[in-house]
Amino acid sequence: MIVGYQGEPGAFSEAAALTLFGETETRGYADFDALVAAVDAGEVDCALLPCENSIHGSIARSYDLLLAHPRVHVVDETTHRIVQALVGVPGATLGDVRSVASHPVALEQCRAFLSSLPGVRVTVSDDTAAAVRRCVEAGDRSAAAIGSALAAQRYGGVVLRESVADEDENITRFLVISRNGKPRRPGKRACIAFALAHRPGALHEALGVVAARGVNLRSLVARPKPKTPFEYVFYIELDAVDAADAGALASEIALDARVLGAY
Amino acid sequence: MIVGYQGEPGAFSEAAALTLFGETETRGYADFDALVAAVDAGEVDCALLPCENSIHGSIARSYDLLLAHPRVHVVDETTHRIVQALVGVPGATLGDVRSVASHPVALEQCRAFLSSLPGVRVTVSDDTAAAVRRCVEAGDRSAAAIGSALAAQRYGGVVLRESVADEDENITRFLVISRNGKPRRPGKRACIAFALAHRPGALHEALGVVAARGVNLRSLVARPKPKTPFEYVFYIELDAVDAADAGALASEIALDARVLGAY
Repeated sequence: MIVGYQGEPGAFSEAAALTLFGETETRGYADFDALVAAVDAGEVDCALLPCENSIHGSIARSYDLLLAHPRVHVVDETTHRIVQALVGVPGATLGDVRSVASHPVALEQCRAFLSSLPGVRVTVSDDTAAAVRRCVEAGDRSAAAIGSALAAQRYGGVVLRESVADEDENITRFLVISRNGKPRRPGKRACIAFALAHRPGALHEALGVVAARGVNLRSLVARPKPKTPFEYVFYIELDAVDAADAGALASEIALDARVLGAY
Repeated sequence: MIVGYQGEPGAFSEAAALTLFGETETRGYADFDALVAAVDAGEVDCALLPCENSIHGSIARSYDLLLAHPRVHVVDETTHRIVQALVGVPGATLGDVRSVASHPVALEQCRAFLSSLPGVRVTVSDDTAAAVRRCVEAGDRSAAAIGSALAAQRYGGVVLRESVADEDENITRFLVISRNGKPRRPGKRACIAFALAHRPGALHEALGVVAARGVNLRSLVARPKPKTPFEYVFYIELDAVDAADAGALASEIALDARVLGAY
């Protein structure tokens, strides 16, 4: 089985894939669009698509891509804790470090740690895993990178400090997507997409369908419809519904509502 | 009057501030936390806080910061179109360009354009405006950067190509925030925050209060409550309510609901 993810080998998304699936073949893609297209084309058997992060919130783009690829379905979900590690070359110690490279978002998450290192130069990279790879390849004991422990392992670096982010709680939730719509294990969740006209009470009515069945709303994402001002697409995730219930519920919400997956 | 924004001089947020306020003093802050704290401390009179982008969706972190700073209120809003420009040094032409620097998000938005430039090396920077500044300072005709036309103007660069993003529609919506809660001009909008227990129908009931008044819901952001699993904070923006209506509506939704601003 081949599992797709966004990023370079050693990315946090790859770490999440290996945690969920154990040892399996993985394949990295440059962006979310390429990742979902690869699932649609059957290049990979499934993929991990991030949908929510505890610091940054919902990743609306991921839901939009599921709506744009009707053959791709959500079959499972998983959460993964992002632990930023300081990685150096073998033989280096924290005291050797004079420069640190990483993706701007990772650097921002580690600002307090970085300013605790006197006289360290910070440089920007396009990817955390690539920063670790380049650092190890260069073989300079004074250079370090911030990325996953998996990247350190992949590229032969050593973890100089295990957790260097300022905020401890950084969790990403991933949807597992596949062209084969079968849930990976019996679950009771569903994701439904529907569009509503922008008028008072529209969303209230739609959620009334959910409430009437005593179903819990796990998440709700509202997205302006591209090129159609004042119309919105909503993505809801529900607890305690099976695939049949999800289908019935969707058609009651709106004629063109679609179940993106039951899992 | 001093207007705060996130980023370096020449950032798109500064361009939005100057478009809204005309010629005025502006002050850049490293991140959203520092920006909202500066408003709370009275360092700036108001600030532009991005709350939604047409490509990436809602910026939940901004709403969280408003909730964390009860003295800071929303007093207006504005939208700004992000136009990525290719900026070079005076005298350079597009044909001279051999390297392009920018923030990873901007580079990703311009991927098709960048791959249309044969043999160009792409380098990563922590900030679009800083990339433009460094490019102009270096004075090398073969080096260009991607950023705002304002950054080109600020640092004495020239726009080599006006709009280089793959997707044309890239619009950011900003809330104008101030410690002085007075709306900037008579408006009919409000932003309300409230927490709900995670039980079936809870959100449906809350939105029923809004629907019963015939009020349009403009946006809705759901955020897990930090350190309280299974509780959510919701941020809603409403049309056609004045400050008094917003207060009455908020207290009907939930005892601890709070109006973040009427504008």
